[in-house]
Amino acid sequence: MKDFNYSIPTKIFFGVDKINVLGSQIKNYGSRVLLVYGGGSIKKNGLYNKVIENLKENNISFWELPGVDPNPRVTSVRIGVDLCRENSIDIVLAVGGGSSIDCAKVIAAAVNYPGDAWDIVLDPRRIKGVLPIASVLTLAATGSEMDAGAVITNLDTNEKLGTGHPDMAPRFSILDPTYTFTVPANQTAAGTADIMSHIFEVYFNNTESAYLQNRMAEAMLKTCINYGRKAIDEPENYEARANLMWTSSLAINGLLSYGKDAKWSVHPMEHELSAFYDITHGVGLAILTPAWMNYVLSENTIDKFVEYGVNVWDIDKTLDKETIAHKAIERTKEYFISLGIPAALREVGIGEEKLEIMAKQATSRGSIGNFKVLEAEDVLNIFKAAL
Amino acid sequence: MKDFNYSIPTKIFFGVDKINVLGSQIKNYGSRVLLVYGGGSIKKNGLYNKVIENLKENNISFWELPGVDPNPRVTSVRIGVDLCRENSIDIVLAVGGGSSIDCAKVIAAAVNYPGDAWDIVLDPRRIKGVLPIASVLTLAATGSEMDAGAVITNLDTNEKLGTGHPDMAPRFSILDPTYTFTVPANQTAAGTADIMSHIFEVYFNNTESAYLQNRMAEAMLKTCINYGRKAIDEPENYEARANLMWTSSLAINGLLSYGKDAKWSVHPMEHELSAFYDITHGVGLAILTPAWMNYVLSENTIDKFVEYGVNVWDIDKTLDKETIAHKAIERTKEYFISLGIPAALREVGIGEEKLEIMAKQATSRGSIGNFKVLEAEDVLNIFKAAL
Repeated sequence: MKDFNYSIPTKIFFGVDKINVLGSQIKNYGSRVLLVYGGGSIKKNGLYNKVIENLKENNISFWELPGVDPNPRVTSVRIGVDLCRENSIDIVLAVGGGSSIDCAKVIAAAVNYPGDAWDIVLDPRRIKGVLPIASVLTLAATGSEMDAGAVITNLDTNEKLGTGHPDMAPRFSILDPTYTFTVPANQTAAGTADIMSHIFEVYFNNTESAYLQNRMAEAMLKTCINYGRKAIDEPENYEARANLMWTSSLAINGLLSYGKDAKWSVHPMEHELSAFYDITHGVGLAILTPAWMNYVLSENTIDKFVEYGVNVWDIDKTLDKETIAHKAIERTKEYFISLGIPAALREVGIGEEKLEIMAKQATSRGSIGNFKVLEAEDVLNIFKAAL
Repeated sequence: MKDFNYSIPTKIFFGVDKINVLGSQIKNYGSRVLLVYGGGSIKKNGLYNKVIENLKENNISFWELPGVDPNPRVTSVRIGVDLCRENSIDIVLAVGGGSSIDCAKVIAAAVNYPGDAWDIVLDPRRIKGVLPIASVLTLAATGSEMDAGAVITNLDTNEKLGTGHPDMAPRFSILDPTYTFTVPANQTAAGTADIMSHIFEVYFNNTESAYLQNRMAEAMLKTCINYGRKAIDEPENYEARANLMWTSSLAINGLLSYGKDAKWSVHPMEHELSAFYDITHGVGLAILTPAWMNYVLSENTIDKFVEYGVNVWDIDKTLDKETIAHKAIERTKEYFISLGIPAALREVGIGEEKLEIMAKQATSRGSIGNFKVLEAEDVLNIFKAAL
């Protein structure tokens, strides 16, 4: 097990009607709120009204930044920063999924930075003096509600990049699984794939001495597999929604990566797909994952795939290693298909045209991954295999 | 999954020589430290000197409370409280295992309570204004390094009781697995049994919708089983010591119990054994656990034992339920024996004499457990079965 410094300070209020704590929690940080949210879904399902009522009851002033896109844009961040500065905002509150939360995080981190917000995405070391952040979660996917990272897209430059700072972890997040009852099937599927990918990114790793973390990762993968399809078939199945929601937070809050030396692979590849084609992040991940698995499977890595196949997919451990590994990858692919996710890049409108430039850009900040180190050529091969 | 409010604020510095952060971390809370520790082991293995040197280098003043016993006494707490008051202590630092940390916690919680320290053990609602607490851990067992509880013994009244307050969670804990290299075999075994018992207390539970928590519990149990014997056979096996140490913290910091309605069973029973006979806590737990399992196994609970047997002990799931359940309990008992722990109360000098009074006292604050609710008579039956 590698050395680590653990700090997961975000408080979680989990359960039905936990929205009731919103005002009292916000008051710990101030009385002037910037409300960040996406499209109209929170207005349609009534959550917007609940939030507004609660803020008003608690005499909290608020300003609004609506219309944050999936794959949130730096242009939204800039508008939010101006709103914060003009209105002396104390705390940035995201109501939505990972896009709204990521946008809120970078707004909060950019307010006290004198230059353009994109600078702190390019270089997180510039982040100082982050405003408090909080979230009301409406989608089980990114885990942004409990981690210190954010991903922002710059459509001008076709860049989708991650940034982060310890103070970007939300002070608190409200997780009410009933708010995900109205999430449509395709978003539930993509969210589940996103959670699973976060787990894969640290599970497929060479730090074998992190036994505990590996077993916990399997616990979370099994939870996704057990409930992903169920949440699609029965959108109001509380048990399914609750398990997925809590797994989304724990999968990426550090619990699985502390003690490992994990460098991600599939996420940086997918970010290029989203940056160039604006596809749904989780869909891109689900398409790339089996292709990546097949590509990195080798004599050096096969034991990890065997572990995965036996412990997660319950594949007969008396079979030979090769068979178990291939079955495990096949099961992964079939599972994503069973969620209704497209299985190939062409199905989401991505052809060969930009594969090379995307592969190059995916590795523009250096090689990616460390389970198997990937250079531009490797990424291109994986893209091609996923066509 | 039940509703919960999650807050695990303790920072963990995990790894070799993390003691180097001690002074800089303490300075976040003040410059006057009460050092709480047990017998001479930290002096023998050099840790005491490292702590003192680090404090001196950082110009931190310190006072000492040595000699904290296993099953720490309220008499030690009282001395510590006086030391804190006389010397305007800013932070209480435990160096040791759960006993030293628990003692430090109750000292920190009692300083600002005007009455006797035992009062706040009897009624935690009296706790207000807890001094900051920190720990340097030397034993993987109680998990006190990352939770908000403490257990204190009053030998005058033969009481061993738990208390707790959110502010009693250490601000930070230093976990260097090499500090457990010198832990003797019997303590390593008892510590492992203690960790496993913390997991059992929430795993054997009727909140079946907490699927994620159940799978994580199994992950931690497997880790204990994988490394307990190894740490005894190879005391300086870093991987084994590291996995046990981190599991000790995660097993009881709330991660497994958030989302469940867990009321403990075996711990309150064992506390009576330790209160009356001052035996090692983990040994008492290991002796009682299989007896408790056999006693609570019924038509209502058998599915949980099957889940346990199949997922943790890899018992053939095609066998009939009864067989799996009994095998699972047998494997548990055999595992504790394989660690060198006595298997019966008589082996640790406990006969029939006080069983009745201990059973009565175990339930003096009401019935215990909720997997199966236990009254005094049930506890007596379990004690007898463990003789």
